[in-house]
Amino acid sequence: MQFLSDNAAPVHPRLWEAMRAADAPDTPYDTDALSRELDARFSALFGRDCAALWVATGTAANCLALATMVEPHGGVVCHREAHIEMDECGAPGFYLHGAKLLLADGEGAKVTPESVSKVLSGITRGVHQVPAQALSITQASESGLVYRSDELVALASLTDAHGLGFHMDGARFANAVAFLDCPPAEAAGPVDALSFGCVKNGGMGAEAVVLFDVEQAERLRYRRKRAGHLQSKGRFLAAQVLAMLEDDLWLANARAANGAAALIAERAQDRLVHPQEINELFVRMTTSERAVLRDQGFSFYDWDDASIRLVTHWATDPDHARALGEAIARL
Amino acid sequence: MQFLSDNAAPVHPRLWEAMRAADAPDTPYDTDALSRELDARFSALFGRDCAALWVATGTAANCLALATMVEPHGGVVCHREAHIEMDECGAPGFYLHGAKLLLADGEGAKVTPESVSKVLSGITRGVHQVPAQALSITQASESGLVYRSDELVALASLTDAHGLGFHMDGARFANAVAFLDCPPAEAAGPVDALSFGCVKNGGMGAEAVVLFDVEQAERLRYRRKRAGHLQSKGRFLAAQVLAMLEDDLWLANARAANGAAALIAERAQDRLVHPQEINELFVRMTTSERAVLRDQGFSFYDWDDASIRLVTHWATDPDHARALGEAIARL
Amino acid sequence: MQFLSDNAAPVHPRLWEAMRAADAPDTPYDTDALSRELDARFSALFGRDCAALWVATGTAANCLALATMVEPHGGVVCHREAHIEMDECGAPGFYLHGAKLLLADGEGAKVTPESVSKVLSGITRGVHQVPAQALSITQASESGLVYRSDELVALASLTDAHGLGFHMDGARFANAVAFLDCPPAEAAGPVDALSFGCVKNGGMGAEAVVLFDVEQAERLRYRRKRAGHLQSKGRFLAAQVLAMLEDDLWLANARAANGAAALIAERAQDRLVHPQEINELFVRMTTSERAVLRDQGFSFYDWDDASIRLVTHWATDPDHARALGEAIARL
Amino acid sequence: MQFLSDNAAPVHPRLWEAMRAADAPDTPYDTDALSRELDARFSALFGRDCAALWVATGTAANCLALATMVEPHGGVVCHREAHIEMDECGAPGFYLHGAKLLLADGEGAKVTPESVSKVLSGITRGVHQVPAQALSITQASESGLVYRSDELVALASLTDAHGLGFHMDGARFANAVAFLDCPPAEAAGPVDALSFGCVKNGGMGAEAVVLFDVEQAERLRYRRKRAGHLQSKGRFLAAQVLAMLEDDLWLANARAANGAAALIAERAQDRLVHPQEINELFVRMTTSERAVLRDQGFSFYDWDDASIRLVTHWATDPDHARALGEAIARL
Repeated sequence: MQFLSDNAAPVHPRLWEAMRAADAPDTPYDTDALSRELDARFSALFGRDCAALWVATGTAANCLALATMVEPHGGVVCHREAHIEMDECGAPGFYLHGAKLLLADGEGAKVTPESVSKVLSGITRGVHQVPAQALSITQASESGLVYRSDELVALASLTDAHGLGFHMDGARFANAVAFLDCPPAEAAGPVDALSFGCVKNGGMGAEAVVLFDVEQAERLRYRRKRAGHLQSKGRFLAAQVLAMLEDDLWLANARAANGAAALIAERAQDRLVHPQEINELFVRMTTSERAVLRDQGFSFYDWDDASIRLVTHWATDPDHARALGEAIARL
Repeated sequence: MQFLSDNAAPVHPRLWEAMRAADAPDTPYDTDALSRELDARFSALFGRDCAALWVATGTAANCLALATMVEPHGGVVCHREAHIEMDECGAPGFYLHGAKLLLADGEGAKVTPESVSKVLSGITRGVHQVPAQALSITQASESGLVYRSDELVALASLTDAHGLGFHMDGARFANAVAFLDCPPAEAAGPVDALSFGCVKNGGMGAEAVVLFDVEQAERLRYRRKRAGHLQSKGRFLAAQVLAMLEDDLWLANARAANGAAALIAERAQDRLVHPQEINELFVRMTTSERAVLRDQGFSFYDWDDASIRLVTHWATDPDHARALGEAIARL
Repeated sequence: MQFLSDNAAPVHPRLWEAMRAADAPDTPYDTDALSRELDARFSALFGRDCAALWVATGTAANCLALATMVEPHGGVVCHREAHIEMDECGAPGFYLHGAKLLLADGEGAKVTPESVSKVLSGITRGVHQVPAQALSITQASESGLVYRSDELVALASLTDAHGLGFHMDGARFANAVAFLDCPPAEAAGPVDALSFGCVKNGGMGAEAVVLFDVEQAERLRYRRKRAGHLQSKGRFLAAQVLAMLEDDLWLANARAANGAAALIAERAQDRLVHPQEINELFVRMTTSERAVLRDQGFSFYDWDDASIRLVTHWATDPDHARALGEAIARL
Repeated sequence: MQFLSDNAAPVHPRLWEAMRAADAPDTPYDTDALSRELDARFSALFGRDCAALWVATGTAANCLALATMVEPHGGVVCHREAHIEMDECGAPGFYLHGAKLLLADGEGAKVTPESVSKVLSGITRGVHQVPAQALSITQASESGLVYRSDELVALASLTDAHGLGFHMDGARFANAVAFLDCPPAEAAGPVDALSFGCVKNGGMGAEAVVLFDVEQAERLRYRRKRAGHLQSKGRFLAAQVLAMLEDDLWLANARAANGAAALIAERAQDRLVHPQEINELFVRMTTSERAVLRDQGFSFYDWDDASIRLVTHWATDPDHARALGEAIARL
């Protein structure tokens, strides 16, 4: 019974179907009919004009999106625990040509207007320091917490005031929307670009970069090609993304994942490091307790000395989740 | 009847099967069982130790391979018409951090020891010029021509003498091997790294970088991650590559593609710009003749004022190829 | 008697005086009184608003100027023999983060609207090719030839039509103005940025980047700092540049240099590869003739198999120049 | 009475003399007689083979030195308050092509084996994290404190154990040596490269990169050129550096600067944030006390809410230093 990662989830059958259906002659790269559908589909989803481009990974999505906002001599404010800071092997430094991540604090891996302001107010010495040019946040955060609409609006007034681009890493955006139970546009808030995750949510190898500043799309297309991310059979990536959107499969999958996490959480309330909001749980646990669970066939990552991380996904068996909840309760 | 590009070819059924079979829980990134098989499979194929890593595109394969050989202040000798020079939107400049392509001439988009030497002998002014650090050739070339074993050996004595890395862009390596009808190791010659193409040959979105200098594998793994090319469900890329190798599917596909091209070529001999060797043909043709063919339902790219390009692939219908041959003969 | 390079020229006494005068306490970097004078002085010189920043070398000046115009995925059209292509060890690739130089032809190392158009018209394949974003020309050219005002206007209508930035490498701008005997603004034409050379013209280690698009100055200041070119005692660079402008010393020096070259040229007319315009001459000469000159104590660079290069400077002794002219005439 | 910065110090008369003496014809770039003397002079100074190259700024020196040790996907461990992190506008990100600074803690801006180990021990997740490839320390530190020989040896055993390059930013290396009153080699410890500062110590615009791994010199020469830091009249930079070394002028200057700081410190002991070791003092002071000093004609930077920074230099008038000490004592 595996609670290691939503990256380990199987590909959803409807995505397989969509990919098979895409296996007909069409023009290469992103000139095929499916790829050309993306802009309209995401514009409809968010209720405002946007451009959407597929890429294979979240790292590429994040970095390409940021490359539309940040110059090589600039900086990106993000949380100290953000994926772009912690887990991407310096990819932002590569894609942004040496631009710097400027680290902000905040509970639950969420930045706040205060913590962002603190970073910005430390930039006072002109050309001797990297100027902030963007804010990047993660929805839901690395700790599995979700920004509320008013929090996004508050951050956006900061980015507006300072002329910063606003980027959202939405590797688990679906789970955030499912939790908030609100229109996607509200969960995205007034960001300029969103990395719309699919892989953790039942995809195979496709994410979408959604640009609400559509004028940036051409720049991003060049950058995508230049990064070796313009796949010649891009129709298979487009097919995955479109299938995700079809009949809100993305939300159904996210609800299933969140639901499985809730089944665990309800039996482990007193051990939770953060309230359960999405499909990630951080559970306080001793070393010996971890061994007990592993002996019962549960697999998961140690997060730190005090806690483990549990991740569910669209195909997590609710019985497994319940069993894990029980097992924790019995510890 | 489509002769535009082998990028437009469908995915081979055995790759679909392999991907479906890979859709079982495994560890993420490249730690899964399939990805871990690649080194051994390619070592067996080439009869010498090598490390093999999947990536989604040929551009990424080429650039990551070169990044193991070339420093930011260095240069890569390649043909003036090479894909890395002409078609990758400056990707080598991105991946190699500003390193320069140093352009060599040669008939049929193949460099020669003479043309490479000419480039090297022009580098005489010390730090004022970019030093050559690698040679990159394309097997088969942009003009559809294949380097023979002795040509590769001759180039390798140059790269040895000058301490250059030696890279082969093998987007159509399969077609070259099928044409040469020799062991893969002979068609690769003494290169240090090979971009082993699958996508044009029936793949969906996977190529392999084969490193004969296995010590470079760790560097390449970091660079792949940093470029956003470490897919979290990498098992699906590994599955494609392994299925290609299984029972030499890659060679069967390439033979089919080359064979279809031969069917056209035999009726168009006097119009061929280069002898037909692989699945690409360049055929001299007037504007009005092109229109005639297009009226008959054949699609293809104009190459230049004097000629068109025809590309076949593993699934090209031989009847279509014969029909095109006839149509050309009738012009 | 040395005709190797204007880089070998001594520093002009008035620059020494100005540097000594600058050796008084002032604020560091470019906040001192002298540095703050540059904008106004160059605005007066060119009769339009500009921002001017000192840097130590022409390579830095060229690359920083181009960095205000060209994105990492873009390209710079320049002559095949331009200094940025031939002599800067890939510095544009470094400063522009992998952007590409797109090479144009033209007699005497000067591009023409036709040769630039030819490069631009070859960019047809969208994201697969690097888009041109700037044109960089050298005034006077690598062959010692000067663009006339109408030539600059013609090139500017091209850059305007294609939305390109327009940069002028003016390492020998002074010599061009002295030759044209026109207002500096006319010799600069409608460029967006000019690398205003001082070092070859009697400076020690200071050039100026002149930005006619003053809004780019802030970006350039950050880039200069980031490149390690913001010297903490910048007042000594400002002092050099200002002393050059004072009483048109720059033009007096350039006239002296050009005049010395003319003294040679008038005795070597039939051997000149190009007409003499500035302080550089290319003179056809056999190997044995070169030896004869060297035996008489003249030093110079071999340019190619057919010709030598002769360079004069502000301090070249006219008697030496006459002597060299005589010696060539006697050959 | 100015205590703002040693960057504001005048150029030492002996450097002026040396530069004037260098104003004779010689070959350009770093091929002149003076530049070619540097290796031998620094080898003698440090008692071991080294290569030494001039550059105009400390930022360039630091970044070029690090570029011999760190790949674009690598990281540099340094103190959280290091100049390369705080004051160089992201220059390491530019020169190292996106490599990351990995921040260590430590009192008085000095890292310790423990704080460095802590950073290293956090790098556990393979390709998902940037690997450390170098350690960079500042001698003397940003807080004006000096690493002792045994501290350097302890750090070097860490860098050895982890295969890291070891770099020392010696913008105030002279002041450290003067304080330690030991051979320069002892104050440099077993580092691989040293940025040997001159500008703050009476120079005009020259520092030296000293490479104890002489095999890196060629790489650094290319990188220097590529960064636009190979000045064509490099003899003037070499002249400054050589004049500094002549008769240990560098140490005499540093002793004078340190001595002036000591004069202040002895009257301000109870207010010192750190013990006075070199020519920088951090003195606790209220806002109103600062105003009192400024009213008496002393200028200095506010460091933070609790303290001011005072910097002396080779030409600081001891009477001014004494006066400031008195004024502080009177507060």
